[in-house]
Amino acid sequence: MSEAQELRRDVAHLGHIELFSPKPAESLRFFCDVLSMQEVAREGQSVYLRAWGEYERYSLKLTEAPQAGLAHTAFRAWSSQALERLVKTIEASGLGKGWIDGDLGHGKAYQFTDPDGHLLELYYDTEKYQAPDALRPALKNQPQRTPDYGIGVRRLDHINFLARHPASNRAFMQQHMGAMLTEEIMLDDGTEAGTWLTFTNKAYDVVYTMDATGSSGRLHHIAYWVDNREDVLRAADIYLEHGIPIEFAPGKHAIAQGFFIYVHEPGGNRIELATGSYLIFDPDWQPVIWSQAERAKGQAWGTPTVASFHTYGTPPAPIPEDH
Amino acid sequence: MSEAQELRRDVAHLGHIELFSPKPAESLRFFCDVLSMQEVAREGQSVYLRAWGEYERYSLKLTEAPQAGLAHTAFRAWSSQALERLVKTIEASGLGKGWIDGDLGHGKAYQFTDPDGHLLELYYDTEKYQAPDALRPALKNQPQRTPDYGIGVRRLDHINFLARHPASNRAFMQQHMGAMLTEEIMLDDGTEAGTWLTFTNKAYDVVYTMDATGSSGRLHHIAYWVDNREDVLRAADIYLEHGIPIEFAPGKHAIAQGFFIYVHEPGGNRIELATGSYLIFDPDWQPVIWSQAERAKGQAWGTPTVASFHTYGTPPAPIPEDH
Amino acid sequence: MSEAQELRRDVAHLGHIELFSPKPAESLRFFCDVLSMQEVAREGQSVYLRAWGEYERYSLKLTEAPQAGLAHTAFRAWSSQALERLVKTIEASGLGKGWIDGDLGHGKAYQFTDPDGHLLELYYDTEKYQAPDALRPALKNQPQRTPDYGIGVRRLDHINFLARHPASNRAFMQQHMGAMLTEEIMLDDGTEAGTWLTFTNKAYDVVYTMDATGSSGRLHHIAYWVDNREDVLRAADIYLEHGIPIEFAPGKHAIAQGFFIYVHEPGGNRIELATGSYLIFDPDWQPVIWSQAERAKGQAWGTPTVASFHTYGTPPAPIPEDH
Amino acid sequence: MSEAQELRRDVAHLGHIELFSPKPAESLRFFCDVLSMQEVAREGQSVYLRAWGEYERYSLKLTEAPQAGLAHTAFRAWSSQALERLVKTIEASGLGKGWIDGDLGHGKAYQFTDPDGHLLELYYDTEKYQAPDALRPALKNQPQRTPDYGIGVRRLDHINFLARHPASNRAFMQQHMGAMLTEEIMLDDGTEAGTWLTFTNKAYDVVYTMDATGSSGRLHHIAYWVDNREDVLRAADIYLEHGIPIEFAPGKHAIAQGFFIYVHEPGGNRIELATGSYLIFDPDWQPVIWSQAERAKGQAWGTPTVASFHTYGTPPAPIPEDH
Repeated sequence: MSEAQELRRDVAHLGHIELFSPKPAESLRFFCDVLSMQEVAREGQSVYLRAWGEYERYSLKLTEAPQAGLAHTAFRAWSSQALERLVKTIEASGLGKGWIDGDLGHGKAYQFTDPDGHLLELYYDTEKYQAPDALRPALKNQPQRTPDYGIGVRRLDHINFLARHPASNRAFMQQHMGAMLTEEIMLDDGTEAGTWLTFTNKAYDVVYTMDATGSSGRLHHIAYWVDNREDVLRAADIYLEHGIPIEFAPGKHAIAQGFFIYVHEPGGNRIELATGSYLIFDPDWQPVIWSQAERAKGQAWGTPTVASFHTYGTPPAPIPEDH
Repeated sequence: MSEAQELRRDVAHLGHIELFSPKPAESLRFFCDVLSMQEVAREGQSVYLRAWGEYERYSLKLTEAPQAGLAHTAFRAWSSQALERLVKTIEASGLGKGWIDGDLGHGKAYQFTDPDGHLLELYYDTEKYQAPDALRPALKNQPQRTPDYGIGVRRLDHINFLARHPASNRAFMQQHMGAMLTEEIMLDDGTEAGTWLTFTNKAYDVVYTMDATGSSGRLHHIAYWVDNREDVLRAADIYLEHGIPIEFAPGKHAIAQGFFIYVHEPGGNRIELATGSYLIFDPDWQPVIWSQAERAKGQAWGTPTVASFHTYGTPPAPIPEDH
Repeated sequence: MSEAQELRRDVAHLGHIELFSPKPAESLRFFCDVLSMQEVAREGQSVYLRAWGEYERYSLKLTEAPQAGLAHTAFRAWSSQALERLVKTIEASGLGKGWIDGDLGHGKAYQFTDPDGHLLELYYDTEKYQAPDALRPALKNQPQRTPDYGIGVRRLDHINFLARHPASNRAFMQQHMGAMLTEEIMLDDGTEAGTWLTFTNKAYDVVYTMDATGSSGRLHHIAYWVDNREDVLRAADIYLEHGIPIEFAPGKHAIAQGFFIYVHEPGGNRIELATGSYLIFDPDWQPVIWSQAERAKGQAWGTPTVASFHTYGTPPAPIPEDH
Repeated sequence: MSEAQELRRDVAHLGHIELFSPKPAESLRFFCDVLSMQEVAREGQSVYLRAWGEYERYSLKLTEAPQAGLAHTAFRAWSSQALERLVKTIEASGLGKGWIDGDLGHGKAYQFTDPDGHLLELYYDTEKYQAPDALRPALKNQPQRTPDYGIGVRRLDHINFLARHPASNRAFMQQHMGAMLTEEIMLDDGTEAGTWLTFTNKAYDVVYTMDATGSSGRLHHIAYWVDNREDVLRAADIYLEHGIPIEFAPGKHAIAQGFFIYVHEPGGNRIELATGSYLIFDPDWQPVIWSQAERAKGQAWGTPTVASFHTYGTPPAPIPEDH
């Protein structure tokens, strides 16, 4: 069995994301007041936030910094043994950086980067969230009371990295993290312009999108999940009333068929609210390849992708003149 | 042309309702925090509340009183002339009480009762709501910012009166207020057990339900409108988290096909959230008559009507032993 | 009282529309198979179609013709007396054409045009639909069984006429048909670029949109109603599977806040599926005026209006070079 | 590592179910016309059916038999190696029956029973569905065109077995199939009255419910998935128009929080349409235990569970007098 097969599902799920924001107070209000996320701790320049349906203590670490962008992305391993296996192969890849003590909420973590330079982490030991009395849910099979204000995102859903070469990052995740490629865009010249990868039954947990600016290490977006398509429409109205410009109004993606809405949080990072899509139960799923022509058709219902979606990311980067 | 035909549509719409509550502070929190209604004024023992989509200043006047129940129900006339016509015929019915100065938000009103003794009012001059800056909507064609907390009821929808004899009240509304009968329940012995009446294109604005306790002047429920069926389901979860017992969980009525959920607000009055149903454009609508057997089938999808729905109302009244 | 006030609500509702189609067989399949409409009769070059929730026999007459476009639009009067009043004032306007025998499903009708030349009709006597046994509904308060195939449009909702001068047509409808202006777009130079009018509690039944081609008598679109926003999203997927190009993917209008999707039926006429919006109960509604700058902001959530929406209509007309 | 840990996720997913029906033609019409399932083959007394979103050839084998009930339930293994591991431990349990040649659509399968006597199967080799031209989807990342008639169930979701002793079956699935217990009902005397188990990220794939009749090997229900809660409400109306009695109208379960509707298909087997619920990403999920008192509270929004839900199953069995 290949390394990839041994590792397949050694990663349990996308755990948490640390975002940089040059407007931390405004970003915080966005995540807390509009997305209904809960502040669980503060430390130094960082605030730790959770969504109501998450079992771990937090999924978002918001850190003040001069520029917006992605600080690090962490994945939880399936078990201690799975963590060991993953670390061993990542070390062998040459992209490992080493063990660090755990951060708030989780135990020791192994740091590494993907080929594009995004800082990643793997951990296993984690702290399960315990709701304080005021946030006790009516139904005991959820971690926390469902918020009755704001959009009420349930959980972190996925991350979309911008990268110079999605292909090498896709390969890294497959070979060294056991990810499964579910869908991708292949241009006429063979370039993989976008790759969708999963560690779970979800159609995707991680995406690599070609960075039109030629930069490395940038973020396209992070996504939080809401349960129904009507929740995405309701979110659009909430964004509108909050004066938050909507970059890409509610629609359905062709790729992975998610129903989406995109905005930029006040610090500049692009945030998606997602639902729909589909689950994959087939252990031998064959990736769906979209051609350049198919991609040019736009979203599922023919809506052209907004121009900024192809170039904007964080931190900001100049768009080449020939774009 | 009969009196009813002349008056047809002289009433523009159900305007506002005054409820009594023995727990005014808790009732207020229910309407404001859970239903997202807005307090616009206080006067004496009363608080005036509006829903975000209403053009008048308020639709609910909440008044402290020893018992829950219905204080009065007010309808807006189509015009001054329409008001005059209505008052003239009501005076002739013998049920008129006389003119009163307007209350907060509206001009002079003519007071009367229906045959069952419910206190009613007709007015025409009214104050249009002007949102303060903090509540300015993003879209100028709505009176107020859409709330992003609570259930976010859009507007008052209808009232359901308990009465000893729905038939005589139905006849009064038809003959002296120009109401149109849209649907009704006729028992095998010819008794009208429930009558649904409209002044608008809505399938109903007013209902008379037979009071199983034999009392007069009681209230079955008032209803506020939400836009989508998913909003009713979401409301159920909000009620659950707020610890508000759900009397009748979300379902679809056979009569007028509304999608509903019922609770008792803390003061005891039954409150419905409603959506769905249908609009009637036919000026010559023939009422739909449901037989006793048809009524016994329960709600649209076969759910039995909860027992308390047949007996509970406000103010409380003892249920006869033979019920 | 002005003529307009006397006539106010003398029109009960938009009754039916006759569309021309150069591809009658394909158009028929679109309306029947995709929109789930029911064929009730054929006569000559025309097929008569109804939506399941309509009380009259049909709302759409589909007539074979060399070009797509609008044959005529019919409105039902509130009563015989209302019809008389309307006819009298229309005759006085000079735009009357005369009485005609009724068409299938309705009695004698008075023909006239609006200032732009669209052929209009008013009638009162109408035939109420009686479902054949196979289409008997489970719930007796609807005319027909809810379809379980296709999109299942409930009823005709509104018509949007293209016109050289929306203002004069808006004035005609107000003065000679008792319509109420609810919203409009006023360009910086005072031109009314779009006017939304109602005869009912709906935010609009009729729209006049400026024809960018300078033509007269053309159609922008007709709209059918579905109950929930999710039904519009579902319709998008149904259109996609049927290979029907989606001109304007699901979104929310700023004006009247309807939730929409637009396609061209096979004959070329633009068809909208609509839901949402709001009801107007205020008899003294003040029209909402949108400025040119406000209009340029696009739809409710910022989506730009698709370019063809500004120029395409039926019958086809050349777009001026300077557009 | 324990046997359970080694096997954890060796089962990929619930594959297909074979139901017995004494009314095969009527059952077939139910699944095909109402649930929109597709017939893919017939063989002997059996018809093979698929839902549009499934990657394998079918999920339901409908077999004519004198009584309704469950013929067999099949699970797909994650890999050939996983299948080997599973078979080894099941053989050791004493409940193995042996290998059989594959049925239509899948390769060799290992037959066994659970402690209650339900006939189960494990396979790995399977046939991927290839849509014929007429069923080609518009979006290439789904196996088949989305149906535009009927309810349009996407995929098989779960099975609920009736059993004398849920506990021993729960233990068997955990120890010999690597299932994870997610939620359960524990009566005051320690009896496990219901156990919810998963092989995937779904909150459950398999349920064992105590059989109130004391019988063995019966079926409580099978469930198909629809995407939105509005789809469940729409399904209720479709059932209504088709004259299919609704056993348990749409509502929300407390356990696993699924949104449901239950009917009996014409042969008598109980069929659920399900959506909502939640996904579990935690590899160390601690089962949620509901007490007898908590269970008595009814469904999530307080609706009592319909009485037949506690006793009815297939094949029919007499309800003990003391129940």
